[in-house]
Amino acid sequence: MTAPLTTPAPARPSAALVVTKYHGAGNDFVVLVDLDDAAPPVGPATARRLCDRHRGIGADGLIRASRASPDRGAMLRFELWNADGSSAEMSGNGMRCLAQAALEAGVVEPGVAFGVVTPAGLRKVTAGPADPAIAGGTWAVVEMGRALIEGEPAGPEGEPGRLLIDMGNPHLVVLGARLAEIDVATVGRQLGTADPGGRNVEFVAFGPGADEITMRVWERGVGETLACGTGACAAALAGHHWGRVGTHVTVHQPGGSVAVDLRGDGTMTLAGPSQRIATCWTLP
Amino acid sequence: MTAPLTTPAPARPSAALVVTKYHGAGNDFVVLVDLDDAAPPVGPATARRLCDRHRGIGADGLIRASRASPDRGAMLRFELWNADGSSAEMSGNGMRCLAQAALEAGVVEPGVAFGVVTPAGLRKVTAGPADPAIAGGTWAVVEMGRALIEGEPAGPEGEPGRLLIDMGNPHLVVLGARLAEIDVATVGRQLGTADPGGRNVEFVAFGPGADEITMRVWERGVGETLACGTGACAAALAGHHWGRVGTHVTVHQPGGSVAVDLRGDGTMTLAGPSQRIATCWTLP
Repeated sequence: MTAPLTTPAPARPSAALVVTKYHGAGNDFVVLVDLDDAAPPVGPATARRLCDRHRGIGADGLIRASRASPDRGAMLRFELWNADGSSAEMSGNGMRCLAQAALEAGVVEPGVAFGVVTPAGLRKVTAGPADPAIAGGTWAVVEMGRALIEGEPAGPEGEPGRLLIDMGNPHLVVLGARLAEIDVATVGRQLGTADPGGRNVEFVAFGPGADEITMRVWERGVGETLACGTGACAAALAGHHWGRVGTHVTVHQPGGSVAVDLRGDGTMTLAGPSQRIATCWTLP
Repeated sequence: MTAPLTTPAPARPSAALVVTKYHGAGNDFVVLVDLDDAAPPVGPATARRLCDRHRGIGADGLIRASRASPDRGAMLRFELWNADGSSAEMSGNGMRCLAQAALEAGVVEPGVAFGVVTPAGLRKVTAGPADPAIAGGTWAVVEMGRALIEGEPAGPEGEPGRLLIDMGNPHLVVLGARLAEIDVATVGRQLGTADPGGRNVEFVAFGPGADEITMRVWERGVGETLACGTGACAAALAGHHWGRVGTHVTVHQPGGSVAVDLRGDGTMTLAGPSQRIATCWTLP
């Protein structure tokens, strides 16, 4: 008890891993911006450790943003590991968080689109400027590319209202009337693990307004989450395919609402908030 | 896209709230060490925001460690808010995290006991030295004071095996054979909210070894948690009261194991690990 009673700032070891936790509509990510490839290497084990809700920082996934090869027509490279360590091709909410991280790191300008290489292909992203209406956050838009309708399977009793969609990652959209009553953890896992490699499963209902969809989602490698960006896009496309919504669709999820624009050429954009939670350092 | 492609360290605003997330046997806390009362004020709303698992850092509770009044015979003052913003009198796992935080802040010496004022009374705590066997962590011992057996109510069908214990905070220990099958979220809430103010509820079974207890716990203001320090003490006392364990008891919980020593004078100590997860700054 010899030390003085002051409040020293915790020391940060030089080998520390510095990450920032963001969320987009409640879908939360630990983001490592490592443009110089100078940070400690990260991978599935890092994702499991950092994403653990009680023994780690806690998140739905770990994103690493690194410098893209100049010949790819992009500024950044996007890598994403789910909380269980599995790799994901793409995440619309995660891409918005990456866009905000790049904006805050000062490597992109607000309102200017930049290219990001993802395992699902090249995507354009625009973030900011900072929006005073979004605490610690900004509005961000992601070009989600072209979706592919893979099939329209019947339900177990032959009912319609199911659509298989490839958004770069695989989705199953299921029309369901009473969203609040669905056991998403159980039914989502059943439906989402039926295919090899798995699928994200979106349970959707139309409304409350015109061109609005309400949705709950089960994500591969995570479980039920508060929001899913590619899932919101898949839901909007399914709703449009079924003739229930137009081309400017608002998708309400437990974690927040996003806007999906469907274009005539089959491409779409996802717009929504991204919010910074905390910048953290931890041992690598 | 005019800025250079480097990786700047995120800037920390001078008004930022700097906290460190720790866990003791999987019971996780955001700890604010504020010995100079210089940090932004925190309270129930801060706890709800910081402890939110998706929109905040995520934790079972928020602990503030401040300077104790010199006439209290203690070095630090301990305040704890649960994830829902409610106040808690005491947390054995939280006190171990506070002890590690004090050790890392350099205001106490490893292995030397120091006093902490809690809403449940004065407690002595000892942390460290750092233990290479515990990643980012240390072994810490908390003097838990004297427990009070308040009553031995019968179960709904008149069966024995229930004990009401006051550890500074109120507990109900319930003997149950098949811990894995108990719906702790539902039954815990039923039993834990029967009394005004609420109780923590420990479901215990004896074994696997001699002087060992296996336990699951439902905490007021949180729900099922991976571990509870006062709960482990209550479980050990109940087991000893029922003649099933001696005075040196190991309590196994989903998040890890702790050691409870019951003394002849009715006091007890709780020993177990504390581990640092990350130091974070966030807007106040």
